[in-house]
Amino acid sequence: MDALLIIAASESDANLYYASGFLAPDPFVFLQVGGKRLLLMSDLEIDRARAQARADEVTSYTIYEGKARQRWSQPRLADVVAVWLEDVGVNAVSAPSNFPLEHADRLRERGIRVAARPDPLFPERLIKSEAEIAAIAETQRHTEAALAAALDVLRDAEIHGEDVSWQGRPLTSEDLKRVVNVSLMENGCVAEHTIIAGGVDGVDPHNQGSGPIKANQSIIFDIFPRSSRTRYFADMTRTVVKGRASDQLKRMYDAVLAGQRRGIDLARDGASGAAVHAEVIRTMDRRGFETAVVNGRNEGFFHGTGHGVGLDIHEPPRISKVDHILRAGQVVTVEPGLYYPRWGAVRIEDMVVVEAGGCRNLTRFPKDELLEL
Amino acid sequence: MDALLIIAASESDANLYYASGFLAPDPFVFLQVGGKRLLLMSDLEIDRARAQARADEVTSYTIYEGKARQRWSQPRLADVVAVWLEDVGVNAVSAPSNFPLEHADRLRERGIRVAARPDPLFPERLIKSEAEIAAIAETQRHTEAALAAALDVLRDAEIHGEDVSWQGRPLTSEDLKRVVNVSLMENGCVAEHTIIAGGVDGVDPHNQGSGPIKANQSIIFDIFPRSSRTRYFADMTRTVVKGRASDQLKRMYDAVLAGQRRGIDLARDGASGAAVHAEVIRTMDRRGFETAVVNGRNEGFFHGTGHGVGLDIHEPPRISKVDHILRAGQVVTVEPGLYYPRWGAVRIEDMVVVEAGGCRNLTRFPKDELLEL
Repeated sequence: MDALLIIAASESDANLYYASGFLAPDPFVFLQVGGKRLLLMSDLEIDRARAQARADEVTSYTIYEGKARQRWSQPRLADVVAVWLEDVGVNAVSAPSNFPLEHADRLRERGIRVAARPDPLFPERLIKSEAEIAAIAETQRHTEAALAAALDVLRDAEIHGEDVSWQGRPLTSEDLKRVVNVSLMENGCVAEHTIIAGGVDGVDPHNQGSGPIKANQSIIFDIFPRSSRTRYFADMTRTVVKGRASDQLKRMYDAVLAGQRRGIDLARDGASGAAVHAEVIRTMDRRGFETAVVNGRNEGFFHGTGHGVGLDIHEPPRISKVDHILRAGQVVTVEPGLYYPRWGAVRIEDMVVVEAGGCRNLTRFPKDELLEL
Repeated sequence: MDALLIIAASESDANLYYASGFLAPDPFVFLQVGGKRLLLMSDLEIDRARAQARADEVTSYTIYEGKARQRWSQPRLADVVAVWLEDVGVNAVSAPSNFPLEHADRLRERGIRVAARPDPLFPERLIKSEAEIAAIAETQRHTEAALAAALDVLRDAEIHGEDVSWQGRPLTSEDLKRVVNVSLMENGCVAEHTIIAGGVDGVDPHNQGSGPIKANQSIIFDIFPRSSRTRYFADMTRTVVKGRASDQLKRMYDAVLAGQRRGIDLARDGASGAAVHAEVIRTMDRRGFETAVVNGRNEGFFHGTGHGVGLDIHEPPRISKVDHILRAGQVVTVEPGLYYPRWGAVRIEDMVVVEAGGCRNLTRFPKDELLEL
């Protein structure tokens, strides 16, 4: 019998949320066996699970804890699950790749065979329905509104030499993040790690940015909120300058935009993610922007071109050196960038749906030229 | 050699963030061996890790991926880690209880011994320094400001029969959550699952609440944000009524308040969490509020009295039927509740620091009587 066992908190485990339709902050137990979905739930969650979860049976953890206690003095969670599996008639399970080692080893001690399944656990999760695409697009609308609100502030701010002030104080990355996050919140979205990174901060793609915004430097806005209602993420990046950009930064922008457009042109059902990525690199290379390690530091374009977006912010497929084949219905980002300590950073990111003959862009925010505010 | 191996994304794994001081959205590899902390980082994160992480050495994942590829055609992450461990001279590791099964089994195939360590992985994480307590208290201040903002809206709202309107529309749970979350956001905090649950919604402790607020019913506000800057959580719950409360609801409130005060009185270094929990139950029992299963549904008080708070919203120790001993420096919630479908729900939650002879309350928000607005 091919049984799948998941023990996780569905708030942080998208596979379990996808499988159960039930959102909970603490771990619970899910078993899919013989076409049925069974849950083992604590007293705290059992009523809500019975009302909300997509499950054929919801069983009380407390009852099985009592049964386990008849056998062992201080049963652990996996002991309780072992007794339950015995009652259900299951002695071998497969489990997600991230299944907790402690539970797996304990179940094995109790005579249950446990084998990790390769990712993705639910390949069907990568192919989005129209309803899922609509949810992701809706989150992207809120992402765009948040960026627009931040750019309004940046537009209103005043330049004094290299400094930028707003409402009588130096404008900071933190100020702009607050504007972004309040706008998202008003639309029921939560963004935990918004990047608003100016100058050298932006040259490190994962630096979230901090401190005063400076004039005439690249500023990267990378915003990837989740809708609290639908649980679906969106993802968008734009690069702007408050003041005037150097000619070199403008050339970088044009190269990234050309690379990004090339990537979007190539994304379609059946395309190789690795081939798309290589062509994006080539497009920027041909314009003179090479990738290298200089003084022990990466320069140029040294991250993937894109990733899937859905119930997780980063999910398969990747558009990167790892070869994934793109399939119709997948929602992916296309987000090349260039990073040089001496010139600054540019990243442009849209989110698209892969289709049979091409892809449909879910992003509406302008990107035609480097925005100087 | 006692080596500890963690492979996780520190944004979602507080142990790894605690161990490395480095916040990253994607998994990375941490090894503690011979008193040293070593990191194996992707190109994307390596520069930032070298600048920010508490690590003695930061090594390139790409280099070890190359070495692994000389041995196997398509090395997986655990294969790369196995080659690295060999170079470091480690052939046996312990791992967190939540270590991913797939990696553990692959490392074992490659000849590395892997054993899960029991929780808590870092017992010292539970004992908070003064700086950590200050961070948690600061988040609690922002929690209180957010609740105050929501209660201002509720105060301004108008009652028409059983309905409550605000700015010309029915006031909803979603409206109040937006007020809470915008206030938190303005203070650099993020709350993902704020509970604002009126009437029967509140009777299910994990129902987050939705739809129109009704007059003369209990409304539970349970707010547990994380500071984006410090990463520390706080947690507070209050129960109010818009309009007039029934006498029975007032009696419930008094019983919960008495139980909560009793729990706070008993919380101190060396106290048994199970004994505190039992005494909280007894205090409410004596006032006539019993716990039972009625028509297949839990009524009364059927969750734990409290839990630790820190880099995770739920961490040890528990104040519940599981017996944990409280220790000075732990930050815990004390949050009894009573839930009856026919009367409503009351929960009152403060967050306290356990000390030698008692505990210090980190919560300032009033709770002396059921607030009727």
